[in-house]
Amino acid sequence: MGKYAIGVDYGTQSVRAILVDIDTGKTAAESVVEYAHGLLSGFPGKNVPRSYALQDPMDYLNGLIETVSAVMDRSGLGPENVVGLAIDATASTLLPVGRNKKPLSEYPEFRSEPHAWLKLWKHHGGEAEAARMTEIASEMGEPWLERYGGRISSEWMFPKVLETLHCAPQVVDRADALLEVMDWLTWILTDHLTVSGCGRGYKALVVEDFPSREYLARLDPRLPDIVCTKMNQPILPVGSRAGVLCPEMAEKLHLLPGTPVGTPIIDAHSSVLGGGITGPGEMMIIMGTSACHLMLTERAAGVPGIQGIVWDGIMPGWFGIEAGQSCVGDQFEWAVRNCFPEPYAREARERGLSPHQLLTQKLEGVHAGDTGLIALDWLNGVRSPLMDFELNGLIVGLNLRTKPEEIYMALVESAAFGTRTILESFEKAGLPVREIVLGGGIPAKNPFVVRTFANVLRRPVRICASKQASALGAAMLGICAAPESVTGYGSLAEIVRRLGQVQQDPIRPETAEADVYDKLYADYLELHRYFGRENPDLMHRLTRMHR
Amino acid sequence: MGKYAIGVDYGTQSVRAILVDIDTGKTAAESVVEYAHGLLSGFPGKNVPRSYALQDPMDYLNGLIETVSAVMDRSGLGPENVVGLAIDATASTLLPVGRNKKPLSEYPEFRSEPHAWLKLWKHHGGEAEAARMTEIASEMGEPWLERYGGRISSEWMFPKVLETLHCAPQVVDRADALLEVMDWLTWILTDHLTVSGCGRGYKALVVEDFPSREYLARLDPRLPDIVCTKMNQPILPVGSRAGVLCPEMAEKLHLLPGTPVGTPIIDAHSSVLGGGITGPGEMMIIMGTSACHLMLTERAAGVPGIQGIVWDGIMPGWFGIEAGQSCVGDQFEWAVRNCFPEPYAREARERGLSPHQLLTQKLEGVHAGDTGLIALDWLNGVRSPLMDFELNGLIVGLNLRTKPEEIYMALVESAAFGTRTILESFEKAGLPVREIVLGGGIPAKNPFVVRTFANVLRRPVRICASKQASALGAAMLGICAAPESVTGYGSLAEIVRRLGQVQQDPIRPETAEADVYDKLYADYLELHRYFGRENPDLMHRLTRMHR
Repeated sequence: MGKYAIGVDYGTQSVRAILVDIDTGKTAAESVVEYAHGLLSGFPGKNVPRSYALQDPMDYLNGLIETVSAVMDRSGLGPENVVGLAIDATASTLLPVGRNKKPLSEYPEFRSEPHAWLKLWKHHGGEAEAARMTEIASEMGEPWLERYGGRISSEWMFPKVLETLHCAPQVVDRADALLEVMDWLTWILTDHLTVSGCGRGYKALVVEDFPSREYLARLDPRLPDIVCTKMNQPILPVGSRAGVLCPEMAEKLHLLPGTPVGTPIIDAHSSVLGGGITGPGEMMIIMGTSACHLMLTERAAGVPGIQGIVWDGIMPGWFGIEAGQSCVGDQFEWAVRNCFPEPYAREARERGLSPHQLLTQKLEGVHAGDTGLIALDWLNGVRSPLMDFELNGLIVGLNLRTKPEEIYMALVESAAFGTRTILESFEKAGLPVREIVLGGGIPAKNPFVVRTFANVLRRPVRICASKQASALGAAMLGICAAPESVTGYGSLAEIVRRLGQVQQDPIRPETAEADVYDKLYADYLELHRYFGRENPDLMHRLTRMHR
Repeated sequence: MGKYAIGVDYGTQSVRAILVDIDTGKTAAESVVEYAHGLLSGFPGKNVPRSYALQDPMDYLNGLIETVSAVMDRSGLGPENVVGLAIDATASTLLPVGRNKKPLSEYPEFRSEPHAWLKLWKHHGGEAEAARMTEIASEMGEPWLERYGGRISSEWMFPKVLETLHCAPQVVDRADALLEVMDWLTWILTDHLTVSGCGRGYKALVVEDFPSREYLARLDPRLPDIVCTKMNQPILPVGSRAGVLCPEMAEKLHLLPGTPVGTPIIDAHSSVLGGGITGPGEMMIIMGTSACHLMLTERAAGVPGIQGIVWDGIMPGWFGIEAGQSCVGDQFEWAVRNCFPEPYAREARERGLSPHQLLTQKLEGVHAGDTGLIALDWLNGVRSPLMDFELNGLIVGLNLRTKPEEIYMALVESAAFGTRTILESFEKAGLPVREIVLGGGIPAKNPFVVRTFANVLRRPVRICASKQASALGAAMLGICAAPESVTGYGSLAEIVRRLGQVQQDPIRPETAEADVYDKLYADYLELHRYFGRENPDLMHRLTRMHR
């Protein structure tokens, strides 16, 4: 019957399990379940601010049971065919957990306390805390700060912990553990509490260890003890075994007790494995509403605005470096929502095209520079390299003949220019980028975007061939958790090399287009400098004004 | 039966005649005729470049006969009731005329020669000539250059004359006169060739006289003689009598021979009269696709980027100063064409609203600054004060929540900010602006635009009450051409004071809004400085790139 592994991939809105043939990488069964409660929008007697993003952790647990049991049932395979399983999930998901792995939100007395629930990555309630963390770290010259691009994001664990401590100290008090949801789920699977070095490294400032007690105490006098007692679980590297499946969960998942469970990984990072990257020089860009840039490197290097550089964070034996872009697919959607007039909508309908398809068809034969437009891809602020979320978008070059498809093209180009600033900051730090792998939802369905990225970045671009690169990566970690004698694989790198799914023939840059883009990029950089560094207050004021 | 005057107003696409009661200013009859041939798009065997804008002068003459005879017939009045008539027209309309007032385009040998036809104001074939004129005038320190804002526009007479001389010298050679179309038509009416000081002053660089022979010779050795023999007709001031109606035209117009004919005036300048302005401090802004800013002043002052400052140019005894903004209504239309998605179009249709009405309704309760956007109103280049037609439009402050109505609002605000730069350059030159009168098509139908202008300009704004302010101004000049004994009016100012039509209660600025706009305007000025002066090449490059 062959051997299989299970990867469980937790996204923002749904969870997906796949059952993967460990010899071919082919998906034998798949199941997707949306979180039953979605984003929690209110609690009795409490308004939830717009910056909050809360979820019910039980949706995650139910999703695990539903999807894994479903792929087992659908596949017709016996549980003995499964060599291992592992989880990937969105990160920076703070979950306070009490006795017996029970989330605090399950305690009757905490049901109506927003801070007792799962805080999703995009929960931005800890902006002030994040700013203070950066300030104090700079002041104290904390050596780890450089590894995080010089600035703490409000999305990460500590700003969320501090926010909870400030707004609902009783929640922190009652919690036995403050966990990433992937670590909680792995704990439930194995009945053994460990945490992933990927989550702790990228999102909880662990560089060998947490920041110093002295630094933590400056943030809040209670914090050193909280870290020591509630966050200081054993850290396992990516590629290791977190434990084996406990009998209770084995029954629910239709698997065998004792099945190896891999250490979990962040979803974006998992897709580096799914995309077949095993060494430096290949940058993985996961392109959805926003984008995440990941690469393996031989050494740690300070790069402005990166999100983290973590040893063993993606692949054992390498540093994994992460950067990010706040607005990619989101700004293409913005164009479709705002700059797509009725005649275009009618034409798209009549011709059976999506708005994106119609716009990119209208751009056939339109070359670099033809729009006379340059945009700044800052409609959702800037992550790397500026780390400034009060910056905003700009379009320059408009004239009375400017058309919707030209605005669309300028926004696609600007996303590519934004990526180029990141890529160049990597190279400036001595981390060469030879080739690009594009993952996420957009590249597979939008060839115009892929071509534009190849031309702007002047590098071959390959598309990640699997639609479930993250889930595939998780399944690889499930394989890696099983003994070599069972799987025949000696290392994670070997698994990735064999099963990673990436387009064989890269899209290559067209010289004439790339030459024009070099010139446009010089102007993009000048706008970047002027609005991002010389006069950022102009945009900051506008952002604050927007009702 | 009362006394009446006729005003004939030549626009870009049509001619309108009105018959006005000289005691009340009321219109007794009206007739509008479109130019039969519109813009001429091609000639046998010749491509017409996109920058050209050519028309058939016979459409103008036929329009004169059709509309005036029509108002006479419709009114039921006898020709003896008409005390006078006059013409206003778009200016910078070069027309080469041969023997017997016959346009060269009527000569069989010139029918297929584009340069023999009427060049409309927006004919931009003489860009290179205009640039050279400015350069040489600066080099020679020509004293009149300051009166024209320091830069010659390609729309004016001399660049068009030079263009004709370079492209089709035989046309200039065969012409007896190179005229504004309003002067040609007045010649036909009176059988007596004079030209208006308004046209010559604003569009042909006449400050007391034409530029020196030395300067003209530097432009082209043939030019001094051409000016001397083909452009040097007697110049009459606005408010004077050009002559009386000749028998031949009287019959065609259904009027009496000997009816006084006033000296013609440029259409925009005529609306200052129609809008009831008789002295300094009130700025008339004629707001259509672009905008024209006119004011009477006591003295000539150098203002950067003005279009001209001419003694007797609008009202005898005053300087008339003209400035311009290249893109006003055009950019509101651009927003409707590009940023007005299908759901908006559907809603407008269902509610029976125009797109502008729907957008401004959605902006009810939206205050200054609420959009978080600032735009530069440069989608068609910049006239005053920068005189740079390779600049282009910009929107800054975009984010993922930015909506179409916010883009619309930002474009309206930017037009007002653009006006404010002009107004402030007037005041800096010692020409205070106390109050604004808005004419043209937009103010009467778009109260949102009017309110925004009042708030941005921090001044009371009145709307020109007549839809035919220009035609009314022309009729006033018809009255002025008749003897005081017939009309009872002693001066043009007296006629304007009595018959000028302007809203009595001004729209006043709201302090809270104006305070916010003061702050936004500071940012607008900074963008103006950066893109317009410090780094104009960035926009220039983009403009040249746009296919």
